[in-house]
Order: sequence, then structure tokens, then C-alpha cells
Amino acid sequence: METIKIVKIGGNIINNKEALDSFIANFSKITGPKILVHGGGKLASELAKKMEVPVKMIDGRRVTDEATLDIITMVYAGKINKNIVAQLQANKVNALGFTGADAQTIVSVKRPSKPIDFGYAGDIVKVNTSTLELLLNNGITPVFCAITHDTEGNLLNTNADTIASELAIAFGQNYSTELYYCFEKDGVLRNVDNPDSVIEEIDLNTYQELKNEQVIFEGMIPKLDNCFHALKNKVYQVHIGKTDMLFNQQTKHTLLQL
Amino acid sequence: METIKIVKIGGNIINNKEALDSFIANFSKITGPKILVHGGGKLASELAKKMEVPVKMIDGRRVTDEATLDIITMVYAGKINKNIVAQLQANKVNALGFTGADAQTIVSVKRPSKPIDFGYAGDIVKVNTSTLELLLNNGITPVFCAITHDTEGNLLNTNADTIASELAIAFGQNYSTELYYCFEKDGVLRNVDNPDSVIEEIDLNTYQELKNEQVIFEGMIPKLDNCFHALKNKVYQVHIGKTDMLFNQQTKHTLLQL
Repeated sequence: METIKIVKIGGNIINNKEALDSFIANFSKITGPKILVHGGGKLASELAKKMEVPVKMIDGRRVTDEATLDIITMVYAGKINKNIVAQLQANKVNALGFTGADAQTIVSVKRPSKPIDFGYAGDIVKVNTSTLELLLNNGITPVFCAITHDTEGNLLNTNADTIASELAIAFGQNYSTELYYCFEKDGVLRNVDNPDSVIEEIDLNTYQELKNEQVIFEGMIPKLDNCFHALKNKVYQVHIGKTDMLFNQQTKHTLLQL
Repeated sequence: METIKIVKIGGNIINNKEALDSFIANFSKITGPKILVHGGGKLASELAKKMEVPVKMIDGRRVTDEATLDIITMVYAGKINKNIVAQLQANKVNALGFTGADAQTIVSVKRPSKPIDFGYAGDIVKVNTSTLELLLNNGITPVFCAITHDTEGNLLNTNADTIASELAIAFGQNYSTELYYCFEKDGVLRNVDNPDSVIEEIDLNTYQELKNEQVIFEGMIPKLDNCFHALKNKVYQVHIGKTDMLFNQQTKHTLLQL
């Protein structure tokens, strides 16, 4: 099976022009089919502040009322997505920007309003890869922002980590899928205060042990649950670390496999 | 040759939820390949005001400084484009949003800063139809906003009428191309104060006469020049009028042909 790389980048890259330029230059050198997924970084909150729309977060997740949905649609699908597409084109990557509404690629349902009402937040129910495969086979690189739709005309704010893993699962049917989560640390750390304490390999057993020992806790648990969910559903490998791991095989990072 | 319809809508539809809903419902009923091109309407100026970015227009065209480029990228490619895509999906049209940077579809050069410096304004130099044809052949409907790129990483604000005509010209190579400009009047009027005075057909000779008689003047001249430029470059027909002309053959409107 052909290998596809699905790469998710977050705020630490998007918020920093130098980091983004460097990432894009390197991402462009990856050969073979690839998909980029980006979050929104601080820009959405900055625009909300300028427009005097209150920013409300619960458990680290944005509550998306109608005004906030407008803002994230402008920032994620407009400013961030199209600037990344233009930069990739300048680096000879034939990029094409997507929300989940585009070509019906990612369908969600609005999250139930109980126990917590997150507003226009979407939980993914279906990924359609056919148009994406057609484009990949023709040398196009899809670039997804963190927005999906419900097929009834509503855009929905959707976690970028989940978009990356659900894309990876869907591509797992026809490809050997490698999923990369790029963030500001070298990987999952045994000791959060020691950047050199990267855990280089985690499988299901060691994951359980690390949770029992409370080495992995709080915000990392849903992130790693998401990764193991992907691995249990035909994704070949998940890598977590700084973007260098994508381009330099010697870079220390965390590799997850079953 | 297969027929393709390229439809441009402007502010009178985009700024009015009812008009947009009605347009989308009707556009969805058009069978065969079609492309939608939309302008930005008043939303960009409204957002600029909220963000305290001065709006500067010269000869009816926006001067696009860096802050303004951010705003139009957010409004055109984000808010307007993605909401139209989601609405089309709800009406069973498999839409996919584009700027000219996406899939390298429309390449421009930044307009020379003399005699007037319009800032990040793009003049189209190349339209690549190959990816668009691939998508159209697979049942996808491209939806373009009024942004292109220079292939060097810069997005450029580009007149939506021109995007529509340049797309039509490029598709004229392989398709019988019909270009529709939807606006708030029933067509080109012989007397601007009389909405019933639609000129139903204009060819090159009558266009010259109408200009000589000053029936056509000011802002309509560049618009019609743009239409005749398309007709001289393999576009089959240009239609100007209210959106009803698209769905009801009996609707009075202006038909341009050589």
C-alpha cells in the first residue's frame, strides 16, 4: 500500500511567522501523498477581542456561539488557510484548502447541548475520501482547517486533532497511514519539567502503565486516547513531537503504535 | 461541446440573506457543469470599520493595503465562501471553495503602483483549468471568491467580474461557455430611470452605437468591455440581469454576443 502522511500543526507554528515559514519549506520537501491539518492558534481570540466578542473556554475548548463561528470561519478558513495555501504554492506544493463542507469531505453533528453547551461545535460522523484521493492522485495537497459541516448548511467548529485522526482513519482503508502531531515539545515527556525526558515509544500496555503512574495525565489523556483510537482503526503509526521529526529521521520524538 | 455555465453574483445577493437563500436554491437546480463566482459585498467594509481599518476606494475600486488584504481574505475566502459552500451542500450541490491560489487555478501579478497604487490588487495572467475540469467531471462545483495569488506567496484582491470572465475564456477552449452576470437590475437599461427599458440584445455594432449615444456610460463601460473581451475570446454568450434569468428562460434580460 502507498504511504500517506497526515500532518497536524498547532498554534506554536501558526502564531510564529518564522516557525511557519520554516515548517512550510520543510513540509514541501516531503515526497508522496500528504495532507496538512491546521488549528487556529491565537488569531481567533485576538480577532474576537478586537470585535468585542467574548471568548469563552470550557475545559480548554472554545464555546462557539454564532458570532464566534463567524470569527473562526474568517480566521481558520480565510486568513490562516489561504495564507498557508499561497505559501505552499510558492514552495511548489499544489495545495488546495478545505473545510469539511468543501467537497462534502467531513460531516459532523452538532454536539449535544448537555451536559455542556459548546454551541456550534461538531463531532465528526463521516469522512469522504473519494474527492481527496482523486486530488492526491493528481498531485494536489489538501490543507484542512478546523471546520466541518452538518450537511444542512451549518458550519461547525471541530477539534483539529480529531480532524487529523479521523482523516487518518479514513485513509487507513487504502493507504499505509502515518499521522504526525507537531507541537512545541520534543514528544510525550516522562517529566514535564525535563525536556530531555521524551518517551520514545508508547504502546497500549505502556500507555496504561503511564496513566496508572500518573506520568500521563490531564490534557494529554484525551490527546493520546485520540491517537490510540486511530491506531486501533487501521492507522499505521502516530508520531508526536517537534516538526523536525518529519524531516530528520534522527530527531527524538514519541512514536505510538499498538 | 459540453455547455458550462459560469455565474457571477454580487453584493445585492450576498448582502441579503433571503436573496442569497433563493439564489442558492435556484442555482442548485441548474444541471450540467457550473462554476459560481462571488464578490464581497458590504461585509468587508463593515468588518474594516469594526476593526478601525480605513476603507479607501478610487474609481469604485478598493485600495488594498496589508490590513485590508487580511480583511478581504477573512471575509471573501472565509465567511462568505464557506457559508455559500455549506448552503450549496445542503441543497445537494457538491461545492468546493476556491481562491486562485487553491490548486494554482488563477495566477495574477500585483498591479503596477503607477498611475494609481491599488496595493495588493491582482491582474490575472493565467487560468489553469485542469484541476477544475477534473473536479467538474466528478460532479464537483467550484465556488470562487475574488482573491488570486502571484505564485510567490502573496494573495491578491482581484475583481470578481474579471475572475468570472477569465474563467469563462479559459473554459471556452473545451466547453461551450455561457457567462452570467447577476445584478440588481433586469439588464442594461436604455434609460437608467426606467427599469422596463432593458436592451435585450447587444452586439459589437450596437455596443458602439450605444456608447456614441451615451446610453452606455461611466461604470457600465468597463463592465461591458470585459464582456466583449470574453466574447472575442471564445466565450459563447454573456447574459446580464437579475438571477431569475438563470432559471426562467422567459425572463427579460440583456444578451451579449458578437
